Amino acid sequence: MTPETATLDPRVFIREKREKREHKADAITEFVARATRREIPDYQVSAWLMAAFLNGLSESETAALTGAMTRSGRVFDWSAIGVPAADKHSTGGIGDKISLVLAPLAACCGVCVPMVSGRGLGHTGGTLDKLESIPGFSTRRSPDEMRSQLQSIGMFMAGQGPDLAPADGLLYSLRDVTSTVEFQPFIVSSIVSKKIAEGARTIVYDVKCGSGAFMRTLADARTLAERLVAATRAQGANSNAFVTDMNWPIGNAIGNALEVVESIDVLRGSGPAETRELSVTLAAEMVRLAGAEPRPAAARARVENALAKGLALERFRALVAAQGGDPQSLDRPLHPAPAMIDVPAPREGYLSGCDGFALGELVVAMGGGRRQASDTIDPRVGVMMLKPRGATVKRGEPFARVHAAAKDEGLAARAAACFTIADAPPAPRAADLVIERVG
Amino acid sequence: MTPETATLDPRVFIREKREKREHKADAITEFVARATRREIPDYQVSAWLMAAFLNGLSESETAALTGAMTRSGRVFDWSAIGVPAADKHSTGGIGDKISLVLAPLAACCGVCVPMVSGRGLGHTGGTLDKLESIPGFSTRRSPDEMRSQLQSIGMFMAGQGPDLAPADGLLYSLRDVTSTVEFQPFIVSSIVSKKIAEGARTIVYDVKCGSGAFMRTLADARTLAERLVAATRAQGANSNAFVTDMNWPIGNAIGNALEVVESIDVLRGSGPAETRELSVTLAAEMVRLAGAEPRPAAARARVENALAKGLALERFRALVAAQGGDPQSLDRPLHPAPAMIDVPAPREGYLSGCDGFALGELVVAMGGGRRQASDTIDPRVGVMMLKPRGATVKRGEPFARVHAAAKDEGLAARAAACFTIADAPPAPRAADLVIERVG
Repeated sequence: MTPETATLDPRVFIREKREKREHKADAITEFVARATRREIPDYQVSAWLMAAFLNGLSESETAALTGAMTRSGRVFDWSAIGVPAADKHSTGGIGDKISLVLAPLAACCGVCVPMVSGRGLGHTGGTLDKLESIPGFSTRRSPDEMRSQLQSIGMFMAGQGPDLAPADGLLYSLRDVTSTVEFQPFIVSSIVSKKIAEGARTIVYDVKCGSGAFMRTLADARTLAERLVAATRAQGANSNAFVTDMNWPIGNAIGNALEVVESIDVLRGSGPAETRELSVTLAAEMVRLAGAEPRPAAARARVENALAKGLALERFRALVAAQGGDPQSLDRPLHPAPAMIDVPAPREGYLSGCDGFALGELVVAMGGGRRQASDTIDPRVGVMMLKPRGATVKRGEPFARVHAAAKDEGLAARAAACFTIADAPPAPRAADLVIERVG
Repeated sequence: MTPETATLDPRVFIREKREKREHKADAITEFVARATRREIPDYQVSAWLMAAFLNGLSESETAALTGAMTRSGRVFDWSAIGVPAADKHSTGGIGDKISLVLAPLAACCGVCVPMVSGRGLGHTGGTLDKLESIPGFSTRRSPDEMRSQLQSIGMFMAGQGPDLAPADGLLYSLRDVTSTVEFQPFIVSSIVSKKIAEGARTIVYDVKCGSGAFMRTLADARTLAERLVAATRAQGANSNAFVTDMNWPIGNAIGNALEVVESIDVLRGSGPAETRELSVTLAAEMVRLAGAEPRPAAARARVENALAKGLALERFRALVAAQGGDPQSLDRPLHPAPAMIDVPAPREGYLSGCDGFALGELVVAMGGGRRQASDTIDPRVGVMMLKPRGATVKRGEPFARVHAAAKDEGLAARAAACFTIADAPPAPRAADLVIERVG
């Protein structure tokens, strides 16, 4: 754009979308850039958000929006590290501690993992909150610390600084107050812009699908997966996605410290099979797609070797040490909860279904999550599954255990109400929970 | 609403319209009231404006919005005056000076006219700007002055004070910057709320239709007329509407002082027939509908008598005097323009069509209107038609005359380009320009 070019008239831009016309990429770029600099007032941004929500954004508009949001702040470039930068993003599920296992696995296998994560908000937990249940662990990393960790241990796990995709912060805050959150092009551009800005050039998506996920149907999940992959590739990065089952918690642990413990168990070679399998599948895809090991079977073997040899566990301990935490705390009970309350089965049958939103809400209510950003987290609380999905239970037999800050027998009933016990076993699901692969 | 009732969550309200659901009247009332008190931020109001624009507002939602906007400020009640308060509103046309003739006519016939008007913005002129071309005339009236004038001369013609429907000021300013202006429920609520707030309990609408109007088609004009009448009746006021022709200027004069002069001519018993006929038709409807004279023929006879006897002229002179103007200025040339430029016909034929937007824009460009609210008006400039619609012209024969601030021969060509000259005469139109009556 030459300096003589008249700048975009926000009213014309809003009208264009109001009339369901396609924006030019340049116009989206300028609108986002000026909105981020607060040169376009919030009331015009929010009118456009609603127009886009109701009239839609095409794939190329979503790509332009993603690019504009990425470039609204600092964009890291880790190419000098010498190995490809890869990351994974999950759309959020119950008991989803996969990042804690996958990141060190991938970092042992020829990629580096510049992982910028969010905090939990709503019914699903956040990776940062889980990590912060490790005593001393800091999720604040300066750019120099990020670079240094990528060079030395191939990974960092940090929170999003204010200079990373600041347009997303602005747009998200307006979406939140104007009821324009649940719109896939906005969700996609928000996720992808942050991952591209953190410097990942290979991004694997884990799109959760089912009763405990934002996407309830396979069709919705598949569409979101396709949009994430398309928008990521449009930014010049490699991408694939998996739609994975979220009709039952992943593994056994739900809650911040409990999930860290389960992750360490998996890195030690034990722990629930599905936590391990999903982590291995996603890490192997990162390694393969980034080109560190292009053959699928070899990529998987490399990841399994890193797990079996304890390399990933050592890498995770190194991460904890690098970010101010105490690695020895991982060898002791981590934030044991003061009260344990068994959850008895209200009837005989097969453990079959889980209302993940209700279960997540229960953990939030106990202090394990946030209702608003300023809430503090109690790392101790959560729910441990004592039996896996599909297991049979007798009436009165405990199948889960609530870890609570204080004895409260009402919690057992609330937890029990989150689960369905049926006369027939549920349909089996894949060992790694993958429903389908997209991309 | 009891004090214990939780107040409206603006996000829920916005979501309701985003999902194309119907708002409850109470919710609209609260949203508008809190927005006007600036308790709901502009970015939420503008998201709602866009959602309503795209998903629609029903007749009952429009009525609730109108009522809420009316009650956002002061609502005048002139029932103590002893005669019904009636008014007319026009949606805006070229050469539309009808209010200047109609208000004194109606005020002589058993109603009082509490007329609050706007300024011109865009291609059509405003009643206030026309009145202010009368030396000394003030369009600012205090409530006491309004009451006093209604008692003594049965009318005032004033600008909208800040306490009259302040919600409209807020919503209009947001509509303007968010490209949500051209939406009939917003247009209707804006017009009707101000008329109800000024205290009129009988409102006749003149919905302009044609090339010089915002409504180009009869279908659009009819819909707007129906919505205006419905929203007005929903506030408990009498209402009817006329759709009238706006494919050619009304009468001969376009421009502020020129239109005042034409209005005085009509009040003196001369002037163009269509200006007189439309004024009489609308005034008679006000008188009839307000109940001052319920029989249509008698109402019309009473209005024609007030015109023929010079009563309305005397009433207009009394208005000028009451509002600080010099009545004797009406007997002298009013702001004659320094330059007169004849507009010659570019070909032989019948005067047939007029691009009212272009003609209005030409008058604005000469200083006769505003591009922004802070512009000042040159009362002298305008265009006088020398021949009526349907007249024959020879090539080169002047059919109009530009009144300009300075000699500029380019104006003749610009003015000529606003008109169509055809081989056949245009279809005739009604003497009073009425296409149809609605209500």
